[in-house]
Amino acid sequence: MERELRIIELKQDVFKKNEIHADDLRCQMKEENTLFINIMASPGAGKTTTLLKTIEVLKNKINIAVMEADIDASVDAEKMRDAGVKTVQLHTGGMCHMDAAMTKQGLNEIDTKEVDILFLENVGNLVCPAEFDTGAAINVAILSVPEGDDKPLKYPLMFQVCDLVLINKIDTKILFDFDDEKVIKHIKTRNSKAEIIFLSSKTGEGFEQWTDWLISTRRTWQDTM
Amino acid sequence: MERELRIIELKQDVFKKNEIHADDLRCQMKEENTLFINIMASPGAGKTTTLLKTIEVLKNKINIAVMEADIDASVDAEKMRDAGVKTVQLHTGGMCHMDAAMTKQGLNEIDTKEVDILFLENVGNLVCPAEFDTGAAINVAILSVPEGDDKPLKYPLMFQVCDLVLINKIDTKILFDFDDEKVIKHIKTRNSKAEIIFLSSKTGEGFEQWTDWLISTRRTWQDTM
Repeated sequence: MERELRIIELKQDVFKKNEIHADDLRCQMKEENTLFINIMASPGAGKTTTLLKTIEVLKNKINIAVMEADIDASVDAEKMRDAGVKTVQLHTGGMCHMDAAMTKQGLNEIDTKEVDILFLENVGNLVCPAEFDTGAAINVAILSVPEGDDKPLKYPLMFQVCDLVLINKIDTKILFDFDDEKVIKHIKTRNSKAEIIFLSSKTGEGFEQWTDWLISTRRTWQDTM
Repeated sequence: MERELRIIELKQDVFKKNEIHADDLRCQMKEENTLFINIMASPGAGKTTTLLKTIEVLKNKINIAVMEADIDASVDAEKMRDAGVKTVQLHTGGMCHMDAAMTKQGLNEIDTKEVDILFLENVGNLVCPAEFDTGAAINVAILSVPEGDDKPLKYPLMFQVCDLVLINKIDTKILFDFDDEKVIKHIKTRNSKAEIIFLSSKTGEGFEQWTDWLISTRRTWQDTM
């Protein structure tokens, strides 16, 4: 386990050629056989907890690395590093999102040739990260039960750009007025192709479905090489 | 009760003179004796529920109006209108924040001379809204228990610019690992002058402290005229 934690102060791409950078990254990751997954959500929806539990379940089966994007602080990246995976902390310097050039600055610090799945934990924000292609092959949005089942109506782009929605904190349903059928309907209104998995990263309920999804998605993605 | 709901598609200020616009708005609101309060929070932290309960408690004592800023949808503004207050829906057209020129476009639709307190429910986002002065006299941030007590560390600017933090959903503490002393410490680290009120907009616990704060803050603000 590497104890040193790399922290990178990001610079924004002045050339604004984000789509080109994003496609280049996808080619590079494909060549290196590394599935790159971008995790997006509101603050507090459970990105970090979900990743930590994912690492716990999968780290003896596949090689995982994590890029932690935060405006400030390095507490989440320290948790990832302590969980035993290669981690790099990206500081966005106040910026509300990650783009492909920013992602590339992080990737320079990770030898992805050895990595099976690389996660980017994007800045906690249900609006801006959806606007920028990070170069990821797969986009995952996490929506937590306490946020409410109406969020796909209010934050449309996030649910349009994601391949999978994880509905997290289902163990707290007893306290919140959250309707599974409504949330499915609202997500499907935005994106008929989005897959949906209900889970609790705290209790582990539904978690096997998510880790199975990761393994099978990686296999399908490799088959398209 | 006015049944028609005005919906305004906002244009961004091309002149980028946000600070000037914001100060102009503050002067105008002062002349009209209308306290303008900007409410900011993550998606699902309880902005709408808090405002609806505030209206319920205060609407027979003072005149309240609401500007609802959303990327899309008008469901929250309809709730405000149905609660019996003058409401205008602002659609940001995908934008992640409100600025003073956008706020002014909303104000043109409300006769603020008759309004004691005007609330702006900003876009659900703990990052970007903090970067733009809306012209409000008071900034309030809502942080909900399910989001976690570490958020002032990760989203520093929001807690630096606010005058008051409402810690909402305290009725759900039984299910979450949320430490009151830690959150107070984290907020005070960012902003030693920020006031903090713990409440539940669902059960009403702590709500009197918030409505009393509103009335006394309005009195203090008027005295500085």
